[in-house]
Amino acid sequence: MDSLMMDRPLQLKTLLWRAERLFGHKQIITRRDDGYRRYTYAEFGKRVRRLADALNRLGVRTGDRVGTLGWNTDQHYEAYFAVPCMGVVLHTINIRLSPDQIGYVIEHAGDSVLLVSPEQLPMLEQIRDRLTNVKAVVVFGDGPPPTTALGPVYGYEELLADADEEIEFPDVDEDSPAGMCYTSGTTGEPKGVVYSHRSTVLHALILCLQGSIGVAERETYLLVTPMSHVNSWGMPYACALQGASLALPGTQPRPHHYLEIIEHARVSVCVAAVTVGMLMRQELESGRQSYVLDSLHTLWLGGQAPPIGEIRWWQQAHGVHVCQGWGMTEASPLLTFTTLTSQFTDLDDEGKFRLLGTQGQPMPLVEIKLVDDHGEELPWDGKHAGEILARSPWVARAYYHDTRSQDSFAGGWFHTGDVGVIDQNGYLSLVDRVKDLIKSGGEWISSVDLENALMGHPEVREAAVVAAPDPVWLERPIAIVATNSPVASDDLTEFLREKFPKFWLPDRFVFVDEVPKTGVGKFDKKLLRQQIAAGNNHSTDKTP
Amino acid sequence: MDSLMMDRPLQLKTLLWRAERLFGHKQIITRRDDGYRRYTYAEFGKRVRRLADALNRLGVRTGDRVGTLGWNTDQHYEAYFAVPCMGVVLHTINIRLSPDQIGYVIEHAGDSVLLVSPEQLPMLEQIRDRLTNVKAVVVFGDGPPPTTALGPVYGYEELLADADEEIEFPDVDEDSPAGMCYTSGTTGEPKGVVYSHRSTVLHALILCLQGSIGVAERETYLLVTPMSHVNSWGMPYACALQGASLALPGTQPRPHHYLEIIEHARVSVCVAAVTVGMLMRQELESGRQSYVLDSLHTLWLGGQAPPIGEIRWWQQAHGVHVCQGWGMTEASPLLTFTTLTSQFTDLDDEGKFRLLGTQGQPMPLVEIKLVDDHGEELPWDGKHAGEILARSPWVARAYYHDTRSQDSFAGGWFHTGDVGVIDQNGYLSLVDRVKDLIKSGGEWISSVDLENALMGHPEVREAAVVAAPDPVWLERPIAIVATNSPVASDDLTEFLREKFPKFWLPDRFVFVDEVPKTGVGKFDKKLLRQQIAAGNNHSTDKTP
Repeated sequence: MDSLMMDRPLQLKTLLWRAERLFGHKQIITRRDDGYRRYTYAEFGKRVRRLADALNRLGVRTGDRVGTLGWNTDQHYEAYFAVPCMGVVLHTINIRLSPDQIGYVIEHAGDSVLLVSPEQLPMLEQIRDRLTNVKAVVVFGDGPPPTTALGPVYGYEELLADADEEIEFPDVDEDSPAGMCYTSGTTGEPKGVVYSHRSTVLHALILCLQGSIGVAERETYLLVTPMSHVNSWGMPYACALQGASLALPGTQPRPHHYLEIIEHARVSVCVAAVTVGMLMRQELESGRQSYVLDSLHTLWLGGQAPPIGEIRWWQQAHGVHVCQGWGMTEASPLLTFTTLTSQFTDLDDEGKFRLLGTQGQPMPLVEIKLVDDHGEELPWDGKHAGEILARSPWVARAYYHDTRSQDSFAGGWFHTGDVGVIDQNGYLSLVDRVKDLIKSGGEWISSVDLENALMGHPEVREAAVVAAPDPVWLERPIAIVATNSPVASDDLTEFLREKFPKFWLPDRFVFVDEVPKTGVGKFDKKLLRQQIAAGNNHSTDKTP
Repeated sequence: MDSLMMDRPLQLKTLLWRAERLFGHKQIITRRDDGYRRYTYAEFGKRVRRLADALNRLGVRTGDRVGTLGWNTDQHYEAYFAVPCMGVVLHTINIRLSPDQIGYVIEHAGDSVLLVSPEQLPMLEQIRDRLTNVKAVVVFGDGPPPTTALGPVYGYEELLADADEEIEFPDVDEDSPAGMCYTSGTTGEPKGVVYSHRSTVLHALILCLQGSIGVAERETYLLVTPMSHVNSWGMPYACALQGASLALPGTQPRPHHYLEIIEHARVSVCVAAVTVGMLMRQELESGRQSYVLDSLHTLWLGGQAPPIGEIRWWQQAHGVHVCQGWGMTEASPLLTFTTLTSQFTDLDDEGKFRLLGTQGQPMPLVEIKLVDDHGEELPWDGKHAGEILARSPWVARAYYHDTRSQDSFAGGWFHTGDVGVIDQNGYLSLVDRVKDLIKSGGEWISSVDLENALMGHPEVREAAVVAAPDPVWLERPIAIVATNSPVASDDLTEFLREKFPKFWLPDRFVFVDEVPKTGVGKFDKKLLRQQIAAGNNHSTDKTP
C-alpha cells in the first residue's frame, strides 16, 4: 500500500510565504554608513520578487548559479530568497578568500551572474580572465555602480526599480539545489558543497526547535555570522520562517558597531563567531564607550569552541547565556547544539559552564558515531576518543565536481575529521581535528585543551598550540600566544602544570601580537605548523 | 546540476534512536489500577524492539496493517514505534466507534493482527465474522489473555518475554505508510487516512517548534488525547524526539485520575479534548478532593474550540495557560496553533483571551486559503468568511480505497469543510462547519458563536445549536442546553440579546442533562438535527 499524503515539496518559498502573510509587519534592520535602514517583511517579499524578476531579465535560468560577494545587508538577505525561490543556486562566496581562490570558485561553480559589494570590484578586475562564464555583475548599494573595467555592470537598486514585484515563484523539486558554499580545505583548492531546498528547509526548522537556538518570533536576532559563510548558519531562513526581527551589521562592521546595533535595535540574541564575542568583550572592557545591553540574553558563538572563560564572563558580567553548536560547511552547518537538559538543573555555575563548554547533543534527525582508526565504533563513555562520523538529511554525500576526498563520505557517513569524546548522555566534546592532534612519544595531546586552558589565563588573549617535529618524541607541542601585557613563559608553564600531565606542557611559548587566522577566522594552524617547522618563529621564543 | 545532500529518509526510527541514545534516563509513567508503572526510554526502546520481533514471528510483514484498540498506556506507546519502525502500518482504531463501524474499519484496512484492550474482546466476538483477515489477537495487560471465542490469542507480556530486544530496524522509504486512522464522516462509513513516515516526522518536528505547543525536554506531558485518535495529535512522536517525560492515564480513566496524575508525576503540560478540560474543572470546583497542581502551566485543549470562559477560568483560578490548535484526521492533525505573537504583548487580559479563543496561525509548511462558494479566494481581513483550504506535506491527498469525497481534494488543496475568517495577521477564527452553518432568510448564523456565548453563561455547562427547518426562514436556530441549575429560556435569550443580531436568537431552548456526543467527544449535531426535525425534543421545550 502507499501512503496518501500530499507530495508538497519542502521548498524555501513556503518560508517566504509565511514571513509575508503572518509577519508582514515585522522588521529587518540594517546598519548603513549613515544610520539604519528599516523595512518590513512585507516590503522584503516584494523586493525579493523584484530581484528574481531582474535576474530573470538578465538571462538567469533554472539551475544556473548566482554568486554573491557581500556583507550582511538587507540586499544580500533578499538574494538569499530570490535566487533559490526562482530555481537558481545561490553561491555565497567567502569575501576573505584570496583573489586566486575566489577566481577558482567562481569558475568552478560556473556562476553566470555575480552580486557584489562595491569594494570587491578591484579584486574582480584582477581575476577578470577567470570570469568568462559571468554575463553580468550587479553591485550592491544604493547608487549607480562605480566605474569598472568589468563587463556589463548594474546597480542593484536601478535593476530592482524596473522589475516586477508580483511574479509567482514556481514549485521546485525539493531535492533541487538551492545554495552552494565552498570550504577551504587543508590542502589544495576549496571544495564545493551543494545544498537542496529540502536540506535547507529542514535545517531551518531545526533551528526553531526547543533545545536548539530555538528561533522564535518574539526575539530580535543580530546576525554577525557572515552571509558569505555556510548559509549564515541557516539563520536567514529560520528568522523568516518564524517572522523574527533581524538586525544586520552591514558593510565592514567593527566591534563597536555590533554593540551599537544591540542597543539601537534592542537585540535579544546575537549570533557570531567566537572571535567576535571576544572582540565585543574587549570593546566593553576598554570602557571607551558605554552601551545599554539589557535586551541581550543569548550569544550563540561558533566557528570554534568558545573558551569556558568567555562563557563565564558573559554570564557574570552581563547575564548573557552563551551557547554553541558544532558543525561545518558539509553539514549546512549544524550537527549538535549545547542545551542544558533537565537533569542538570541543579548543577552549580561552574558545572554548568563546563557543560556549556561542550559541543552539546546531536540535533533531531542527526545521527553521530565515534570510530577508532580502524573504523570500529567506540562507546559513549566520556573517555574513548575517536573520529566523529555523522549522517543527516542536511549533510553532504559528495563535493561538487570534485573527486578529492571521496573517502570523507565512505559508507554513507560523513567523516568529519574532528576527534571527540561523547558522554553517556550524548554530549560531544571535541578533542581536536584529526590532523591537529599532537602525538608525542606514542601519546595523544589535545591542542584544543591546551588552548582553552591558556585562554583561561587572565592576560592571554589568544593561544594556538601546534605540533613541532622532534627527534625524540616525534612531535612536541608549541604554544603561540598573544597577551595583553608581558607574561613569562615559566608563568604560563606553571599555570598549565596543575591541569595537565607533564608531557603535555608546551616545549616553547612563541609570543605574537595576533595569532594568524584563516579566511573564516579560525587559527591558521597549517601556517603556524609551517612557520614552526621552518624555524621562523624561533627568535620570538623569549621571556618578554 | 543536482544537490549533493545525503538522501537520508525522514523515518520514525531516527526519533527512537534519539530517545534512547540521549534521553535513555527519562521516564514514561502510566497509571495502572494498582498505582503507577514507571520505566525509562532505555527500557522502552528494548521493549519496542521486542514487540516488533514478536509481531514478525506472528507473520506480520512489511506493508501489513496492525490494528490497535487500546487506551493510553505504555504498551500502546510501544506499538506506536514498533509497528511503523518495522515497516508495518499502525492502524489506531477509535474505541468509541460502534461495533459495526469497528468491523468495517478492520475489514477495510485489512488488519492482520490486532492489539486490543481486554474489555474489547466481547465486542470483537460480536463482529467475529468480519475478522477473516486477522490472524492473531494480542491482548494488552500484564497477565495471560482472558478466555475468548476468538482465534489465536496471545498475552502481550508473554509474547514480549520470548522476543529479541536487539533486532535492527530497516531503513524505510520516507513515503511508505507509517500509520492510518479512520474519520467518521457525516454520512456513511468512516474514511481512512494513511500517514507516511515523512508526514509523521515532519509533524513531530512542528510540535517541537517555538510558536507551537513547543514540546521540550524539560517538560512532563500528560497525554489524555486518545492514542486511538489521529496519532494522539502527534504527541507520542514529539515527546520521544525531545526526550520529554510522558505521563499516560491508562485504562478507563476518570476526571479525578487526570488530576491525580498531574499531582503525582508533576505534570507541566496537559494535552486533552476540550470536554476533558471542562470535566477537570468540574471536579476541581466540586471540592470533593484537593489536588496540588502547581507544576501545571499549560493546557492544550482541542477537538473543538475551547470557550473563552474556560480559557479565562484556567488562567485566573490556576495560572494555567490554555492554548489550542485547529486540525483534523486528514491533517495529522495540526494545521494552525494559537500563540500570542509579540505585537500583542501589551494587550489586556480580556484581549489576550479573545486572541487565545481563535484557532491561531498556520504552522510552518502549512498553507491555507479562504474561498467563497465559487472557489474564489477571499481576503484575510477578519470579515470575509469562507471555506478554509489547506495544503502541507502532512495533509492527505485522498482517502484509502475510497472513491467518496474526491471533491475534498480537488485542485491540490484539502477542502476542510470548516468555515472561518482570517485576520490580517493570519489568525483564523472558525465560524462553523460548512454543514453546520444555519442559513436563515438568506443570512448566515454561526452555531459556534451562539454556543460559545451560551457556554459563557455561569449556569450553562454545555450548549449545542443546530438548524431546524422553518417554513418562512427555511432554517432557524434551536439551542440544546445542559445547565447546572434551572434557567429560564427567556433569561438565556436576554443573555444573548446584547451580543447578537435579533434574527440570530434561537427560536427555542431544549434543556437536556447532557448534550449527545459523537465517538470522538464532539457534539453530535447530526443526531440533534435528526431529533429536532423529528420533533423528538419538543416536549422538553419548557421553562424548567
